[in-house]
Amino acid sequence: MTAIDADLARLSVNTIRTLSIDAVQKADSGHPGLPLGAAPMSYVLWQQHLRHDPSDPHWPDRDRFVLSAGHGSALLYSLLHLAGYPLSLDQLKAFRQWGSLTPGHPEWHHTPGVEATTGPLGQGSANAVGMAIAERYLGTLFNRPGHTIVDHHTYALVSDGDLMEGVSCEAGSLAGHLGLGKLIYLYDANHVTLDGPLDIAFSEDVAARYGSYGWQVLHVDDGDHDLAALDRALAEARADTARPSIIIVHTTIGFGSPKKAGTSKAHGSPLGVDEVRATKVALGWDPDRSFYVPDEVRAHMAEPGARGQAAHAAWRERFAAWRAAHPELATQWDQAWAGELPAGLDAALPAWKEGDKLATRVASGKVMVALAAAVPWLFGGDADLGGSTKTIVPGGDYDRAGAGRNLRFGIREHAMGSICNGMAYHGGLHPFAATFFVFSDYMRPPVRIAALNGQRVTYVWTHDSIGLGEDGPTHQPVEHLMALRAMPNLAVFRPGDANETAAGWRVAMTRAGGPVALVLSRQDLPVMTAAGAPGAERGAYVLAEASGGAPQVVLIGTGSEVSLAMEARAALEAAGVATRVVSMPCWELFAEQDDAYRAQVLPAGPPRVAVEAGVTMGWREWVGDRGAVIGLDRYGASAPGETLMAKLGITVDAVVAAAKRLLA
Amino acid sequence: MTAIDADLARLSVNTIRTLSIDAVQKADSGHPGLPLGAAPMSYVLWQQHLRHDPSDPHWPDRDRFVLSAGHGSALLYSLLHLAGYPLSLDQLKAFRQWGSLTPGHPEWHHTPGVEATTGPLGQGSANAVGMAIAERYLGTLFNRPGHTIVDHHTYALVSDGDLMEGVSCEAGSLAGHLGLGKLIYLYDANHVTLDGPLDIAFSEDVAARYGSYGWQVLHVDDGDHDLAALDRALAEARADTARPSIIIVHTTIGFGSPKKAGTSKAHGSPLGVDEVRATKVALGWDPDRSFYVPDEVRAHMAEPGARGQAAHAAWRERFAAWRAAHPELATQWDQAWAGELPAGLDAALPAWKEGDKLATRVASGKVMVALAAAVPWLFGGDADLGGSTKTIVPGGDYDRAGAGRNLRFGIREHAMGSICNGMAYHGGLHPFAATFFVFSDYMRPPVRIAALNGQRVTYVWTHDSIGLGEDGPTHQPVEHLMALRAMPNLAVFRPGDANETAAGWRVAMTRAGGPVALVLSRQDLPVMTAAGAPGAERGAYVLAEASGGAPQVVLIGTGSEVSLAMEARAALEAAGVATRVVSMPCWELFAEQDDAYRAQVLPAGPPRVAVEAGVTMGWREWVGDRGAVIGLDRYGASAPGETLMAKLGITVDAVVAAAKRLLA
Repeated sequence: MTAIDADLARLSVNTIRTLSIDAVQKADSGHPGLPLGAAPMSYVLWQQHLRHDPSDPHWPDRDRFVLSAGHGSALLYSLLHLAGYPLSLDQLKAFRQWGSLTPGHPEWHHTPGVEATTGPLGQGSANAVGMAIAERYLGTLFNRPGHTIVDHHTYALVSDGDLMEGVSCEAGSLAGHLGLGKLIYLYDANHVTLDGPLDIAFSEDVAARYGSYGWQVLHVDDGDHDLAALDRALAEARADTARPSIIIVHTTIGFGSPKKAGTSKAHGSPLGVDEVRATKVALGWDPDRSFYVPDEVRAHMAEPGARGQAAHAAWRERFAAWRAAHPELATQWDQAWAGELPAGLDAALPAWKEGDKLATRVASGKVMVALAAAVPWLFGGDADLGGSTKTIVPGGDYDRAGAGRNLRFGIREHAMGSICNGMAYHGGLHPFAATFFVFSDYMRPPVRIAALNGQRVTYVWTHDSIGLGEDGPTHQPVEHLMALRAMPNLAVFRPGDANETAAGWRVAMTRAGGPVALVLSRQDLPVMTAAGAPGAERGAYVLAEASGGAPQVVLIGTGSEVSLAMEARAALEAAGVATRVVSMPCWELFAEQDDAYRAQVLPAGPPRVAVEAGVTMGWREWVGDRGAVIGLDRYGASAPGETLMAKLGITVDAVVAAAKRLLA
Repeated sequence: MTAIDADLARLSVNTIRTLSIDAVQKADSGHPGLPLGAAPMSYVLWQQHLRHDPSDPHWPDRDRFVLSAGHGSALLYSLLHLAGYPLSLDQLKAFRQWGSLTPGHPEWHHTPGVEATTGPLGQGSANAVGMAIAERYLGTLFNRPGHTIVDHHTYALVSDGDLMEGVSCEAGSLAGHLGLGKLIYLYDANHVTLDGPLDIAFSEDVAARYGSYGWQVLHVDDGDHDLAALDRALAEARADTARPSIIIVHTTIGFGSPKKAGTSKAHGSPLGVDEVRATKVALGWDPDRSFYVPDEVRAHMAEPGARGQAAHAAWRERFAAWRAAHPELATQWDQAWAGELPAGLDAALPAWKEGDKLATRVASGKVMVALAAAVPWLFGGDADLGGSTKTIVPGGDYDRAGAGRNLRFGIREHAMGSICNGMAYHGGLHPFAATFFVFSDYMRPPVRIAALNGQRVTYVWTHDSIGLGEDGPTHQPVEHLMALRAMPNLAVFRPGDANETAAGWRVAMTRAGGPVALVLSRQDLPVMTAAGAPGAERGAYVLAEASGGAPQVVLIGTGSEVSLAMEARAALEAAGVATRVVSMPCWELFAEQDDAYRAQVLPAGPPRVAVEAGVTMGWREWVGDRGAVIGLDRYGASAPGETLMAKLGITVDAVVAAAKRLLA
């Protein structure tokens, strides 16, 4: 670290500020208040502490910076531009416009240097926890004596709004529990939210709260001006390697704006042309210049990038030495970062034969044990239901020391999802998260962001219908399959037996463009498929052809209802009705198939009956006007699972009757 | 309060314990650990402090008790039985069976005396906050000098799992902020969760955390035996009327079970026949007796009910005096508790005329101001977006003193939903909650429970599509309409203009059997309907008939796409195509109409084109095999709203082209 030149620093901070408010003003949309207030802390962090290489945003061992308060995106874009990332001034001028690299909130998949998609509050704070976990896990996995190739910090700039959200509470508690010493929050305590002064809704003692989680708590009283204090606090935060740190930085929202500073008026709307001018005057800036970067600032703020390039070069040397010393680890590293599976993995996965009977959650557990042995970068855990979701793999619990393979998220589903996103952002890991399917509702916000980003995350959601039985309607998913199928780019895979479960895991491990949800039964299901369940990976396939090969009716089932459809087929065939059964574990994959394949599986002629223990909405797409759907358009009840299926009409008789009605 | 007879108390506690484990064992399903550990604190609370009248579970001024740790339902059923609620021993014997009043987790709508539907962890802890808010708000509204008719406590029994959930953090922070002095948590700190010892995932300092929220924190070191300490702590909690209190009670999960006490084995599975016997022996119980209630315990535990009946009778006298003194308030009280609107309210609601142009969120705001003036028991607020959701009504912010009309939930959407459920459970209020539509994901768990319960709660969700513009895909709902329509018993109402918005509010205020979601535009929409939007309350109706009355094509729109459909109609009519437009604000209400009405609105002949700025999944039900859907099966982008509509194909041209294609 270098000492800070006061004048140059002030000029730099004001460059960040004015670039940000110019971008917001030009877009006539956005949030000027946070950039004005948080520019000093961001400047000190990026100038003095953040180790990164703007010429290669993907350097694995870079420090991570998450702008959890994503509404302050103009701040981030200004920083990226000034640091030398490939983000031009023209992009800043196109803030929030169609086709630009500078959307209203930061999007990881969209803009180089953006480490996380943020905006929905709280997410970034939990993503950062995931990144810090990933850093430590990968360090344990790959570092060797004399060879440290993973060793970096994770910083997050968090706002009042982030800290109010429950997901940040969950993530903060877990981060303290795990002692994530390389995680550092800069908390922009500006005492103002969109609707007014913070104390209309928030008066807790944040310092005491983070202390209760086991964090180091530091303070900067004058975050608007005191760059030296910010620098010292960041150094102190880095020095404590046993605890995460939060630096509470008191700032003025909209700093510099004569009429709006310190008020909610500065939060979420452009300052206005006149107020932008007045702000520039107050900051000692030329009010006639827009998007202006003084040459000395440009040179000065490019320095960390140059240092980062050098650090990156040094890392490459260390990495090459490590590679040479540990070729087998290097192979794993390459696979981990590329998301490539080791050769021959398919053969290592378990298979089952007809006549076996087991819950798909149990099958999933066995597949996971095989996967985990071959893929050390498959890493995740459960929300205190590992014994039920069957997702605990050999290797012990992940603990404060960074050892262990199973991350016990605690009963914190929302943070679990957001932390998995953070691990995926970090790279080098394939994260997974497990809980009961009904609690997918608790983690829906991060699932959506994973889908939006096209991230590789796997959800293991078990106890997938009223079939779970006695726990009752609060625990019985009914609408969840459909509510998740509605989410673009999430693949929802509900296997019908053990072999289809293995197929689902293959899909999860290889789907590059988005998350996969495995939706699994509590109850035992008969195995009906051959090893590998050929066809399942196409989303739907003919599991049992009609006798004679010319179906009079087609039954479509998913999950536990596939075997029910098979029983119905037997009854129909016995009654002389040629009946095909289509197993349809994944709508999204089937929709991706070509028309010919789809028409082959679901031919135009015979009527179709779908059966699924969930809401019927949406099934019309597959059964057509003439078809029928056996489902459940109400909540469940508390009773043994088989009783519920019978009482609520998810039965062989209902399917048979529907088929006969259609044929009549 | 009476002093506790030690022997009788111990016998009573063990009766609660043995009834609970007998119920679990007979069902061969359930959670014995919590009842065994939490029986002492429950006994002391119910015997010494809880003021209730088992002969009338609906007494408005009773104390409320929430078992947030709903998996311990057997405990609650045992308490209800022993206290004299209409819940027989036979019901305990039918625990978790079809048709019983004793489902696996407590269900408010199902069992007399159950104050909240719990099980999904964290919910009850936040429901209790809502109840305490309701108590104070109603007290401010109705109590008068010399006439106190609302004055009771809210107790919640919370577990480690509840406190790990983010929703409890949000609710706890808000409860401290509001200084809810009549809210008391009993925290069953048993150090064990389903998967093992608590410290595999949870090591925060809970006392310090609740202290940081501004709660009084009390401790009971030996919650297994020290009934006097429990009694003292409860008294101390009640004595502090300025702060909510949490009593941290250290207990042994599965207390008494020789082999399983203190371990996760006691948590979520029956003890087993032999271990039940051994536990009874350890408790000094006859192992041969099941579901046994000693006569002296029955008499003893019925005493609080008798005291409660007397208190209820005294309250009735006070209430009658208040009624006589304040007849106008009494009318409001009756309406509030019955959910009946004052006469003539319809005429007081605003109406708009063709040619007006305003966002439906703005129209909603104006309707709310009119409603709020007439209906003081319409009470709720926003998650720091009141300025955007337009949900702030005259009367100021609800504050620590209990004054004010607008509850500022803070950026705590999940707790907002759960607190609204709590207010609805309490009764006497029609709660509402407002935020951006995309953040409905954050509050989905409580929305589901409101729908399951059939509770009257209104959600005001604005910024309902890509039409919101620059904030980008993290803020643009795409799948949310469909994901919420999938939820049984939630009515999703997306009005097409201002008058339809007023109709939506009428639906929300009068729908008795479940919650209503109002889904509103950020952007201005032209008014196309007459005052009151006749037809909108039937879910779908003919907004514009085809010229000549015989449609060649039917266009169906919702929300902002209704006006788009009207423009498409104009273009098609100009091209000689007789075109009907159906506005369809609410699928659920339309599905409830009779076949004749539905066939009249959507006649069998002409092809249909639906247009909605969201995922197309589900629309096939309404357009049929021959129909077309103009929608958006991808995420949005950051750009002005009109640009997005054009770039992403939600256009008049697209609708016109689809209609022509169908007719070709």
